[in-house]
Amino acid sequence: MVASRSYDSPKGSGRNRRTAFLPTDRLNAFADGVFAIVITLLVLELPVPETTEDLLLALLAGWPDFLAYVISFAFIGGFWITHSSITKLTEQEDHITFRMTLVMLFFVSLLPFSTSLMAMHLVGSGSRLSVFIYGLDLFLASFMLDQIMRYLARRPELLVDGLAKEELRVMEHQRLYGIMLDGVGVLLALFLPRVAIAIYVSVAIYFILQPLFFGRTLKRSLEKQGE
Amino acid sequence: MVASRSYDSPKGSGRNRRTAFLPTDRLNAFADGVFAIVITLLVLELPVPETTEDLLLALLAGWPDFLAYVISFAFIGGFWITHSSITKLTEQEDHITFRMTLVMLFFVSLLPFSTSLMAMHLVGSGSRLSVFIYGLDLFLASFMLDQIMRYLARRPELLVDGLAKEELRVMEHQRLYGIMLDGVGVLLALFLPRVAIAIYVSVAIYFILQPLFFGRTLKRSLEKQGE
Amino acid sequence: MVASRSYDSPKGSGRNRRTAFLPTDRLNAFADGVFAIVITLLVLELPVPETTEDLLLALLAGWPDFLAYVISFAFIGGFWITHSSITKLTEQEDHITFRMTLVMLFFVSLLPFSTSLMAMHLVGSGSRLSVFIYGLDLFLASFMLDQIMRYLARRPELLVDGLAKEELRVMEHQRLYGIMLDGVGVLLALFLPRVAIAIYVSVAIYFILQPLFFGRTLKRSLEKQGE
Amino acid sequence: MVASRSYDSPKGSGRNRRTAFLPTDRLNAFADGVFAIVITLLVLELPVPETTEDLLLALLAGWPDFLAYVISFAFIGGFWITHSSITKLTEQEDHITFRMTLVMLFFVSLLPFSTSLMAMHLVGSGSRLSVFIYGLDLFLASFMLDQIMRYLARRPELLVDGLAKEELRVMEHQRLYGIMLDGVGVLLALFLPRVAIAIYVSVAIYFILQPLFFGRTLKRSLEKQGE
Repeated sequence: MVASRSYDSPKGSGRNRRTAFLPTDRLNAFADGVFAIVITLLVLELPVPETTEDLLLALLAGWPDFLAYVISFAFIGGFWITHSSITKLTEQEDHITFRMTLVMLFFVSLLPFSTSLMAMHLVGSGSRLSVFIYGLDLFLASFMLDQIMRYLARRPELLVDGLAKEELRVMEHQRLYGIMLDGVGVLLALFLPRVAIAIYVSVAIYFILQPLFFGRTLKRSLEKQGE
Repeated sequence: MVASRSYDSPKGSGRNRRTAFLPTDRLNAFADGVFAIVITLLVLELPVPETTEDLLLALLAGWPDFLAYVISFAFIGGFWITHSSITKLTEQEDHITFRMTLVMLFFVSLLPFSTSLMAMHLVGSGSRLSVFIYGLDLFLASFMLDQIMRYLARRPELLVDGLAKEELRVMEHQRLYGIMLDGVGVLLALFLPRVAIAIYVSVAIYFILQPLFFGRTLKRSLEKQGE
Repeated sequence: MVASRSYDSPKGSGRNRRTAFLPTDRLNAFADGVFAIVITLLVLELPVPETTEDLLLALLAGWPDFLAYVISFAFIGGFWITHSSITKLTEQEDHITFRMTLVMLFFVSLLPFSTSLMAMHLVGSGSRLSVFIYGLDLFLASFMLDQIMRYLARRPELLVDGLAKEELRVMEHQRLYGIMLDGVGVLLALFLPRVAIAIYVSVAIYFILQPLFFGRTLKRSLEKQGE
Repeated sequence: MVASRSYDSPKGSGRNRRTAFLPTDRLNAFADGVFAIVITLLVLELPVPETTEDLLLALLAGWPDFLAYVISFAFIGGFWITHSSITKLTEQEDHITFRMTLVMLFFVSLLPFSTSLMAMHLVGSGSRLSVFIYGLDLFLASFMLDQIMRYLARRPELLVDGLAKEELRVMEHQRLYGIMLDGVGVLLALFLPRVAIAIYVSVAIYFILQPLFFGRTLKRSLEKQGE
């Protein structure tokens, strides 16, 4: 629908655009589908205790699964909000954004595996490797989201208007701290897996809350420009 | 699409809106995805008897699973209809509604776990705790839905028109009885789990049927105002 | 979006409509989600042989699962096409169509369970009951789809135009044979489960192919009227 | 939405179109749903090692599962991009394209089964048959996608404009090499399963990367025509 509307838009000639551009609504529908499925598949990994003894104790014993579940839910929710913020600024997609999104979703769709791996080995000899792999998966998904923003900021013909480029740059800049912190966490996982998990939790909170501050910051900075 | 359309809308300046608002269609697509996935994942918990003896008896023995399945299906269906009624009145989303919706969907996506937990422990020593956790999960999802309505009723710039605020208030007011009854059920679960389940069933029926009466009530009350 | 567009439509007053009507796009997104998830969850029930002996023989031994899979896929595909044909003629939804669709989707979402039940008991003493339950599930989903058409045909204010009512009636009339045949199959399942399965296969083929003929029939009948 | 818009379009009479055409948005939503679900269900087949010994070794021992996962992900991603490229050129659907898409999605939805089958038997006596079945599944999905393009190229009334037909032909022509190579791989699987897998990997890369070159080729060829 976006596609059919864009044919009438005044930017460039219809012929070139049809060849080079792809519909934003298909990208969004597929991405929303993958985000929604991954976020709900995670719950299947939560262990339902079969004990007839003390149910509360049995539930508490599953804490690594619940911790891993909450971290993954927060990251995927944050990715979804960030991706929505990006496509809000995007009028069209091209073959590159489709493929970059596919790579980003590859790492997102691996999360039920890496979450389950970490939950199973959080306590024990495999904790370093499993926390490393889990963090690496989160890092690569965040990194790809960042690359999509950088790419779009260089392609004004894909954006809704001239201000969008600046907004993408500010957004990407602010996310950078989160990604760098995430990278530090991944490296630390090989030595101090518990510290790494604390860092992942902080980054999840940062990614979820930061756009709230970002919204205000940008509004102020744009209002300043407008003066 | 909603987003791109809203840029041309006469409300406020385009610059502020772009920074502060998020696309309604992404929120709906993600929420519909989570609702649809959770409602269909529930069926995977239904036990398929492997017995070669009396299949009918084996199926009837799985009644706690079927009961829990039907209650959860009714609640999720009710949440979906209520959420559709809300977004019908919403023209745009902001960073707060995205996050509130994410928290609401967190409790919805936990339902396959809590449903399975209750079904497994409905008969036995874990019945009080499992019925309590299940009811609490339903209560928190209902409560978040309510908070979304309250928030939107205070943000006219996100709504389709001036009447929408009043409708949200009436809707939220009518749902309140259901949520309070639900809360009573959750507390009772710790003492009388079977009574709690009867209450959950009543609330599910109330949430499913009440908008039918609500529709008529509101129509009448608005017609009165119009006179 | 459909909703926001409909506010400007000339039918009736905006106030009444907002109270009584619900957005078609949410209904479609949820229904498409459930159809897509159920149709792909079915594949999880297909047995992957772990034998290191003769793989071909092991695969062929799983024929009841593959047969049940293909029948369910065909029925769900047919339901999806029929539902798309219905909503193509629908401009708006009301609280009744949302609830009828939810009940229809309840029986659709039960299909992974009933398909798995039939596949497991197709050979053995449970064949009559399992084939009966499976057929009943298909029958009730088909029946609800039929009831949605009947309801819409009586509510012209929900339809795209005056001809839509007649089309719904013709569609519903032609589907009736399939539903009646399905009902006969369900009853026969209690005595001759293999004959019942042959009937289910025929009905699946009928539901998939019939709209192709229906399209031509209706086009002819409407062209006649137009003369 | 597309449907309701198309009623006002100038092509042909409204009456005929309503009977013969179906909404593109429902087709896309259902296809995106199936693609997204299948691509994320695949991850459930990845084995999470339960060993407390050497976790790295245990992970590496699961290489057939990871290899099969990556190939399937690449193919499904490629199918999704190709399908988006097709529907970008499509204005309306008819009863034939709905059914062709359903058959294509049937083979796509079988992929979690055939991927799991190949992963389990990649090493051992079942390797020829399992690699053959897996490749055949990919081949049939690719083939159906090709048939949809051929069908659409002969139905200008379903396309967005006159140039779309030519684009579909070029696209379909370029995909042909991939499909033929895929077919060779399937046949080879019965004798040299490892060579077949190497071919599947090449075809996956070809399907993912080729539209990037295609975009440039077509743009050039159309610009030439325009001169």
